[in-house]
This record gives sequence, structure tokens and C-alpha cells, in this order.
Amino acid sequence: MSKLLIVGTVAFDAIETPFGKTDKILGGAATYISLSASNFGIESGIVSVVGGDFPQEYLDMLNDRNIDTTGIEIIKDGKTFFWSGKYHNDMNSRDTLITELNVLEHFNPVVPENFKDAEIVMLGNLHPGVQMSVINQMTSKPKLIVLDTMDFWMNIALEDLKAVIKKIDIITINDEEARQLSGEYSLVNAAKKIHEMGPKYVVIKKGEHGALLFSEGNMFYAPALPLAEVFDPTGAGDTFAGGFTGYLAKTGNISFENMKNAVIYGSNLASFCVEKFGTERMVNLTQQEIKNRLEQFKKLTQFDIELS
Amino acid sequence: MSKLLIVGTVAFDAIETPFGKTDKILGGAATYISLSASNFGIESGIVSVVGGDFPQEYLDMLNDRNIDTTGIEIIKDGKTFFWSGKYHNDMNSRDTLITELNVLEHFNPVVPENFKDAEIVMLGNLHPGVQMSVINQMTSKPKLIVLDTMDFWMNIALEDLKAVIKKIDIITINDEEARQLSGEYSLVNAAKKIHEMGPKYVVIKKGEHGALLFSEGNMFYAPALPLAEVFDPTGAGDTFAGGFTGYLAKTGNISFENMKNAVIYGSNLASFCVEKFGTERMVNLTQQEIKNRLEQFKKLTQFDIELS
Repeated sequence: MSKLLIVGTVAFDAIETPFGKTDKILGGAATYISLSASNFGIESGIVSVVGGDFPQEYLDMLNDRNIDTTGIEIIKDGKTFFWSGKYHNDMNSRDTLITELNVLEHFNPVVPENFKDAEIVMLGNLHPGVQMSVINQMTSKPKLIVLDTMDFWMNIALEDLKAVIKKIDIITINDEEARQLSGEYSLVNAAKKIHEMGPKYVVIKKGEHGALLFSEGNMFYAPALPLAEVFDPTGAGDTFAGGFTGYLAKTGNISFENMKNAVIYGSNLASFCVEKFGTERMVNLTQQEIKNRLEQFKKLTQFDIELS
Repeated sequence: MSKLLIVGTVAFDAIETPFGKTDKILGGAATYISLSASNFGIESGIVSVVGGDFPQEYLDMLNDRNIDTTGIEIIKDGKTFFWSGKYHNDMNSRDTLITELNVLEHFNPVVPENFKDAEIVMLGNLHPGVQMSVINQMTSKPKLIVLDTMDFWMNIALEDLKAVIKKIDIITINDEEARQLSGEYSLVNAAKKIHEMGPKYVVIKKGEHGALLFSEGNMFYAPALPLAEVFDPTGAGDTFAGGFTGYLAKTGNISFENMKNAVIYGSNLASFCVEKFGTERMVNLTQQEIKNRLEQFKKLTQFDIELS
């Protein structure tokens, strides 16, 4: 079992989908990552920042799941990061309606002492400078650093992003972002280019089309579970990252073969996340449900061809 | 081993991709389907029509692969169907530049006597009236009728198409067409609706994202092999259909479990088709290459999670 350090936003979201809309609800990359990873019975901790308006009950809920929140700084007279977005009918694209950075604007991450030796570090989507600061605070070299990012940082902080990409082991990124970062259309070539930028492993997330894991000469494809209804895609990518790193933390095995399993668990958990608004499904999820869904993933992908 | 009857176009194509362009080369749905299926050492026959301009050497090439071409009517003073298209840079969309129906305009399919008892019938993309005529000529009920179609027929001959869809066992269709035909955005719901229209099995082709096989309550996902370069996507869907039906004809087993394997073989063969222009790669393909690619598909998709 490895300790998992998670860095990312803890936020309020207001979401509108064709199925309805929410008021301000709990959101943020670190929230989704940690909830997802908590299904593996590991020790994890969040580094983040919230305002005085952030309810204690949310922190309690995370603590109840063995998620250490001492690294979530509370700025009493500040307001929590707020994002509001509206999904289009196809659920594959969305418009951001409101982004209030609030306390995130001057976020200076501080890694708690007891997580400076975490074996696995999950850097959620944030300014690459913040991600780098966390890496620099680690007192012992992590076994694995996983980074998530997005096109926004490529557009406004590409050099900072490249500097942190050099330091990490795995990048998770969506297909369009992989193309933008690499300048290659083919995902095989994009992964190769990104690999040359530093990370030994590249995970390309393709939303409803699943996720691809690349390393030198190896490729693995985990489909997304085809669903009758995607209720709210918010947090699916972070939930994937949480399942991925949570499983690796639990098993402590970072071989390519085991990383395949981690990708499957990431897809497994993400398939739950989208079934309800926000974190609703993730906070009401049982081990048995995850197990059953794993069986569905096996049925969906496994075949047995006898070569004659 | 089952006999495979293939109905579809035999044509000339002129193709332009970002990698180059061709003069008139051998094309057509039945051509790709039969070449792909011929890799399974089965007995197959084509029902189609060509003009006096169609080279005997192409027919010889098909015959050499145990593909019966007596059902290809030759209209001496007619011209062969000609299609010309240009692919966009992303290779996922194309413009049709020229469509000359020629002999196809009044195509009246005639199934040769020795194929009227074929156990498997593959109805390539053609006017649904032509597809229906072939079904009606079968003297014994086929074990399996597979139909391919496209949005064009939904737009101009929907009632004819619905009538033939009622008579078949499996439909292969791409994702956008499945949405159009069913009026459902989710592919799970689309498959359910199409299933209610007749076919017991629905195969939804998602191009570079692979293919989904649906039957009552069962789902299987075969990814497309991620490729560094897609040279020419022409014929990939037909090659998929040929691999799918060819494998089923060889094994004679139409259980869902075996259909999974058929989908994998369809994807396997399609992954070769796109590596060169037109049929070039398909006519230079060895059993060993297919076997090796099957290993690649296994590596790409198979995982082994021990549940604790």
C-alpha cells in the first residue's frame, strides 16, 4: 500500500445539463480524485485551498473516507473557487458560464509533513507552477507522479507546463489536448512526442470512447462503458484519475500490466460518476457495485480466440 | 464451414488523401468484403454488376482467392460504377467528388443457383430494394443475414430500408447513422431501438474508436487498433464486414461469444485496409500478419484483474 497525495481544486460547481440544473454543489478536481481513490481503502491527503464559506460537513465527509484534509488551507475571509457550466445536448461539449477563482488566485500549496514522503502524487488540473511547487516540496522522490492538465494551461503557461511535464512519470490528457500539445494528429504519434517531453506513460482520455495507455512500445485500450444515459459528465476525468492512482496506491505495483488494471478501474469509477449530478453518485457507491461493474467491463472487452 | 454470399458494388474508385491521390483503381463494397472474407479459406460468391470496361484481371484476382464471380453480371456496352472522393486532413470526413452510377443504375441482382442456399448472406451497402431482392431469391433460409447501409438510403428510401431491416439478423451501421435511424443519441438506446426494428444484433462502427456489438442485454466493444498513420480509410467498413462474416462462415458458430471474435477479426482486417491506398494492402496480406495483429489486439484489450 502506498500513500497518495492529491493536489487540485476543492470547489463549488453549478451545473446545467439537458436533465436539469444544480445550485452550488461540491466540486473540484481534488474532490473527485480523492472520492474515487478512497474506494481502494488507501491513505490519501489533499492539498488545496477553500474559503470561509466552505461547509465543514464537506470536510467531514472526506475525512470519513480516510481522506486527510489538513492540507486544505481555509482562508476565512476568502471565497471558495466557483465554476459554473452548461453542457450541450450531446454532453461532449460545454460552455463555461462563470469562473470565480477567488481563493485559488493566490494559491500557495503547502504539503503537510506526513505527506511529503507520499509514494504516489496525483497533480490535478491546476496552474503548472502550483504543480511544480508540490513536486519541489516532496522530501523523498515519489515512486510515481501523475499529472493532469488541460488546453487552458497550454495556451497561457506552456513553458511552465513543459517544465513540470519533464518531472513527471504519467500524464493524463484528453485527445484534443494531446494533439495540441504534440502537434500530431495521430494519437500514436502524439503519445510518442509527449513521451519525449518526459513522461514514461501517457494516458489519453477520449471521453465516451474510452482511454488509451501508452508506454514505450506498449499500448492498452480501456473503453468507456456505453451508457444509456450520461446525466452529468462533470468530474469524470478526475474520477478516472482517482481510480487509476487509487488502484496503483493500493497495489503498489507500477508495472505496465498492473497499469492496465488501473486504467480499467479508472474507467469503472468514471462510469459511475456520470450517472448523477456532481459527486452524488460517488458518495453513494458500494464495493459490490464496483465489483459488478468490473464484471461488466470484462464482458465488454474480453474475448477468447483459439488460433488454429 | 458455411457458404458466404456477398452482394455489393464492384467499382472503380479515385481517391485523394493528404498522402496522395490515385487514378481509377479497383474498389466497391463487395470487392473489399470478399477480399477480407477470403482470408478465412471459405467459399464465397459475389452478386454485382460491372461494365465492359472492367478488367478481366480483377476478376481473375478474385477467383484466385476462391471468390466466385459468376454472379457479377458484365454489361458489355455499359460502364462500371465510379466513385471519386477526397479525404480531409483528419481522415474522418470526406467529400464525394464524383459519383457515376453507370451500370449500377438499373442493377437487377441475380443470385447464382449454387449460392441460393448460402448459409450466410452479407448485404453490402446498396439500395435496400436490391438487398431485398437478394433475400427473396434465397431458396433456403440463411442462418444469418447481415446488412450494411448508410445515411443516404435513410434519406431517400427509408421505408424500403425499414422493410429490409425487418428481414435481417445483423445490421452494421456507423454511430451517426445509428443515431439518425433510431432518433436516439445514446448508442445503447439507439441499438435498443434498432433491435426493435428487426435485427437481433446491432454492430455500431465508430471508425477510429472501434466497434460495438449489441444483442439483447449483451454488449461487446472492439477497439480499432491505434495507428501511427491512416493512409486511406476507403473500404475499412466493408473490410470489417468481410472479416466479421468471413470468420462466422469459417466457424459456422453464430453465438454471441463467437460473434465477439468475429468483431475482433473485422477490426483486425480493417486495420490493415487503411494502411495503403484502395485494396493494395488487402491483396498483399499473409496469414502470419493477421495472426500477429491478433496478438496486438489481445495485448491492446486483455487484462487480468484478481478480485480480492
